[in-house]
Amino acid sequence: MDRKVKIVQYGCGKMSVYLMRYAMEKGGELVAAFDANPGVIGRDIGEIIGTAPLGIKVTDAAKADEVLKQTKPDVCIIATRSTMAELKEAFALCAKNGVNAISTCEEALFPWNSSPDITRELDELAKAGGCTLCGSGYPDLFWGTMVTNLAGSSVSITKIKGSSSYNVEDYGIALAKGHGAGLTIEEFHREIGNYNSLSSDEIKELVIKGAYIPSYMWNQNGWLCSRLGLTILSQTQKCVPHTYQSDLHSSTLDMTIKAGDATGMSAIVTTETAEGITLETECIGKVYAPDEYDKNEWTLFGEPETTVIVNRPATVELTCGTIVNRIPQLIDSPPGYITTDKMPDNAYMARPMHEYVKSR
Amino acid sequence: MDRKVKIVQYGCGKMSVYLMRYAMEKGGELVAAFDANPGVIGRDIGEIIGTAPLGIKVTDAAKADEVLKQTKPDVCIIATRSTMAELKEAFALCAKNGVNAISTCEEALFPWNSSPDITRELDELAKAGGCTLCGSGYPDLFWGTMVTNLAGSSVSITKIKGSSSYNVEDYGIALAKGHGAGLTIEEFHREIGNYNSLSSDEIKELVIKGAYIPSYMWNQNGWLCSRLGLTILSQTQKCVPHTYQSDLHSSTLDMTIKAGDATGMSAIVTTETAEGITLETECIGKVYAPDEYDKNEWTLFGEPETTVIVNRPATVELTCGTIVNRIPQLIDSPPGYITTDKMPDNAYMARPMHEYVKSR
Ligand SMILES: NC(=O)c1ccc[n+]([C@@H]2O[C@H](COP(=O)([O-])OP(=O)(O)OC[C@H]3O[C@@H](n4cnc5c(N)ncnc54)[C@H](OP(=O)(O)O)[C@@H]3O)[C@@H](O)[C@H]2O)c1
Repeated sequence: MDRKVKIVQYGCGKMSVYLMRYAMEKGGELVAAFDANPGVIGRDIGEIIGTAPLGIKVTDAAKADEVLKQTKPDVCIIATRSTMAELKEAFALCAKNGVNAISTCEEALFPWNSSPDITRELDELAKAGGCTLCGSGYPDLFWGTMVTNLAGSSVSITKIKGSSSYNVEDYGIALAKGHGAGLTIEEFHREIGNYNSLSSDEIKELVIKGAYIPSYMWNQNGWLCSRLGLTILSQTQKCVPHTYQSDLHSSTLDMTIKAGDATGMSAIVTTETAEGITLETECIGKVYAPDEYDKNEWTLFGEPETTVIVNRPATVELTCGTIVNRIPQLIDSPPGYITTDKMPDNAYMARPMHEYVKSR
Repeated sequence: MDRKVKIVQYGCGKMSVYLMRYAMEKGGELVAAFDANPGVIGRDIGEIIGTAPLGIKVTDAAKADEVLKQTKPDVCIIATRSTMAELKEAFALCAKNGVNAISTCEEALFPWNSSPDITRELDELAKAGGCTLCGSGYPDLFWGTMVTNLAGSSVSITKIKGSSSYNVEDYGIALAKGHGAGLTIEEFHREIGNYNSLSSDEIKELVIKGAYIPSYMWNQNGWLCSRLGLTILSQTQKCVPHTYQSDLHSSTLDMTIKAGDATGMSAIVTTETAEGITLETECIGKVYAPDEYDKNEWTLFGEPETTVIVNRPATVELTCGTIVNRIPQLIDSPPGYITTDKMPDNAYMARPMHEYVKSR
């Protein structure tokens, strides 16, 4: 592409601080920003990312349709909430305007196995609009391409075991609530752990009805199996609360979590495949105690056994870096809802991002 | 491809034990094996890999031309020695017979920056023969695609620092000698460390003359810069001997290394690029003391800083797994000497290898 990539930011919260700065640093041109929060609407984006005013003010998301038609951006970065049901409207708006969209929404990484109806609908809208929709972020690389790339050195894999933890405090309220942070153990089991005893078939029924709320690894295992060409036989999920021995303050929740209440959870997803490979993946999201830090560790069992560890990953920066680096591939993908397992692996951009875009 | 991939093994030493087994386990058909060592010629390959006889006997490499013409394999796996000068004949033979070839030879991973004349010559032969030549192995993934994949989450990189160590005892004599194992410190400095004080330009002159013996990271930095699209300004190399406080026996060298003599070395290669990214990569190959084990650790400095560690990698199995998994991509690559940075990233084969081959 022989001009700057035009980018719109949809959702101007914690992630947008990095997303907007990175998009500009990598040579993109920010043309608009949307939010629904009255406290954010009208603020200059420079103020949000901590620079001098940049002359672009956050517009009310209610006017997004109008602004997209006016500005005709190449890409919309959506960082609002965590489920496809919550994302549907923003994705649909982009699709109808022929604007490629990429989201930090965790379910969006591989929504085919948790919200198939919404995903199919968006896929059709995107095809009609001639643009691509996808989800990306930290999981795309650190639970995704890093693992499948490593698998490229394995001769036979019997099991893929992954474990990743992150601090609920680094993210917004949607993530904290999704992890049951601040709930009593009883509330946790009622609100979050209520699928724990469901069989694979029972969950499948809920998924078809559009009534299933997946943990991040639910979608991740779908992504991994799709990328590795594995046929899923069954998939189940267990959510287990984490607690801490003393009270912990959460600024995201604006409350103190009492000792013994849920600081967050482990969600463990187990997938069995026709190829004999078991996936057992766990994500741990909680309000950290002072001595805790982010971890990401994956082991491929089989011949040979290989473990890779990412030490204290800067989860937030890596999420936003991965999203911005996906932009050229997003633009170059065929129209539709295209999950990133169907794209080439992420790549570092040593030059301005438009030089990596092949289309137009 | 709708039939088994026909494979020939060239060099039946330590690596071939895994390479031949993996090639068959992944659905390839082994049609011949060559070696120059009279102690190996005539042995059944089943005996070499530790199974019942398989009816294929190791042929004298002097007859390779004849056998290649007869068997018309799709791929030849070359695991003989470590330099392009030593590999040239086998590669040329494959090219002339239109047989794709992949080698464990470390220099072969990116020989353009150390043996450009030989590589150009082989490139032309391969183009004329309509086949592809390349090098792969442990470095291809664990110093290569693993690092560039990780870089896909970085916004700005100032330095890539890598360190990898392996046990000289796990490999053949070529590798042991290349690392100065068993030399006195004086011999080491004369034979191995003799390029340590050379400037980037002085080394370039030696390279052009075909008189430079690169450490593995010399080629690796070339691979990484090529893959990341970086322009190299200068590259230098320092080889530093390692020693141990007691005598150590080496079965590969069939000798006892005296305390204080070289057990092997660290080779540190530093590359400066026009994009402002420095590469500082080190490989440590030595006869291990009882408490030492393989390590592989890479850090990307910049925004953000990310470290990835592979714990006690099974270097030998990973080398051979990576090579065998590259076979479909090798067959599908355009003719010429095509380094793996130009291929898609390695991928696990859940099904027989010929199902991953697009050509024919
Ligand atoms: N890239 C990687 O990741 C990686 C990893 C492991 C090894 N390697 C390299 O791969 C090569 C093979 O390793 P290895 O451990 O299998 O070595 P090895 O045990 O010494 O086996 C090599 C075999 O090839 C034979 N040979 C040598 N030159 C030949 C020629 N010109 N024609 C036919 N046969 C020949 C040798 O015979 P003689 O015994 O008579 O010499 C020996 O039988 C080494 O150079 C090693 O450094 C690379």
